[in-house]
Amino acid sequence: MGRGLFLTFEGGDGSGKSTQSALLTGWLTAAGRTVVHAREPGGTELGLELREIVLHRRGYIAPRAEALIYAADRAHNIATVVRPALERGDIVIQDRYLDSSVAYQGSGRVLDPGEVRELSLWATERLLPDLTILLDLDVATGRGRLDDSRTRYDRLEAEGAEFHHRVRESYLALAAAEPERFLVLDATASIEELAERIRDRVSVLLA
Amino acid sequence: MGRGLFLTFEGGDGSGKSTQSALLTGWLTAAGRTVVHAREPGGTELGLELREIVLHRRGYIAPRAEALIYAADRAHNIATVVRPALERGDIVIQDRYLDSSVAYQGSGRVLDPGEVRELSLWATERLLPDLTILLDLDVATGRGRLDDSRTRYDRLEAEGAEFHHRVRESYLALAAAEPERFLVLDATASIEELAERIRDRVSVLLA
Repeated sequence: MGRGLFLTFEGGDGSGKSTQSALLTGWLTAAGRTVVHAREPGGTELGLELREIVLHRRGYIAPRAEALIYAADRAHNIATVVRPALERGDIVIQDRYLDSSVAYQGSGRVLDPGEVRELSLWATERLLPDLTILLDLDVATGRGRLDDSRTRYDRLEAEGAEFHHRVRESYLALAAAEPERFLVLDATASIEELAERIRDRVSVLLA
Repeated sequence: MGRGLFLTFEGGDGSGKSTQSALLTGWLTAAGRTVVHAREPGGTELGLELREIVLHRRGYIAPRAEALIYAADRAHNIATVVRPALERGDIVIQDRYLDSSVAYQGSGRVLDPGEVRELSLWATERLLPDLTILLDLDVATGRGRLDDSRTRYDRLEAEGAEFHHRVRESYLALAAAEPERFLVLDATASIEELAERIRDRVSVLLA
């Protein structure tokens, strides 16, 4: 592990991850730091091919096969994008990482959340973020925001409110289990207030 | 687990797996049993797409990503082909299964053999064969056979004799650790002698 920083954003759709990720990037770049944006699935060429298979293929995919394909994407992203960047001393900002897998796949109740986590840890040679920012939002508010922005509502709707309640509970439990790694923020706060809290915490890590 | 039988063949290239698999299939079919042939990688439509990515893509693939893609193929094959067949009461014969992954990937010395095994067991919900027939052959004889048949020699040659010695040792260690599951046969015996030993053992399982 080099001298860089690995920062991840987590939270439901509509919680403001993209906005805060962009603001943090702007602030770090202005301070002279190199920021690498990473994403999963599909953050590498291999990942795009795997993503295509998982998302756009017709026909049934066995749940464990799907989890393993996502883990393969993650393994390749971490080995070829994230670790090299950290070794160069860069700051990596990634929207969603292993906590998303645990919260979403675990809440689907098909796979065991602890096993999903262990799979990700094996895939990444146990790389955990230096900081994970969880933008916590109650389900109704998150849905309202998506209604307003009219993006991706179909997929969300299909899952149902109960599923998203379980995802939120799962996220909060993960944060409670690793309080040093997580910064949990109330996503209903103003954009500027959230950005400031995030900058304060990242400043401590950079110092 | 249903009433079927899951039989796997293991051994280096040139050890006679295909020949013995075909002879056993003929014998079982003549006895009125339904035999399903399974294979990995690429035994399903999803598997073919994954196999295409692993084998024919240009460019580097991180070792863990590769192992996870193979495990995804295996998970899908077991969930959609092998388990349904076993539940119908059929006999599944598969050339190569998790012991191949452990012996080959483990002998490559990049990944830990125990971890590779655990990954396969997770992928398959811990499905082990009822019987694994290991056709054991010293490396020089196996290579001589491949020279004669002039198939796939390039890939084998590229790996080097030392690698294949490690594969053979790894296979024998796996068989020693699970003597009840494995039938280890000297692959230099005659085709008919080997077929008879295999039929004898399968008869016991069928009884």
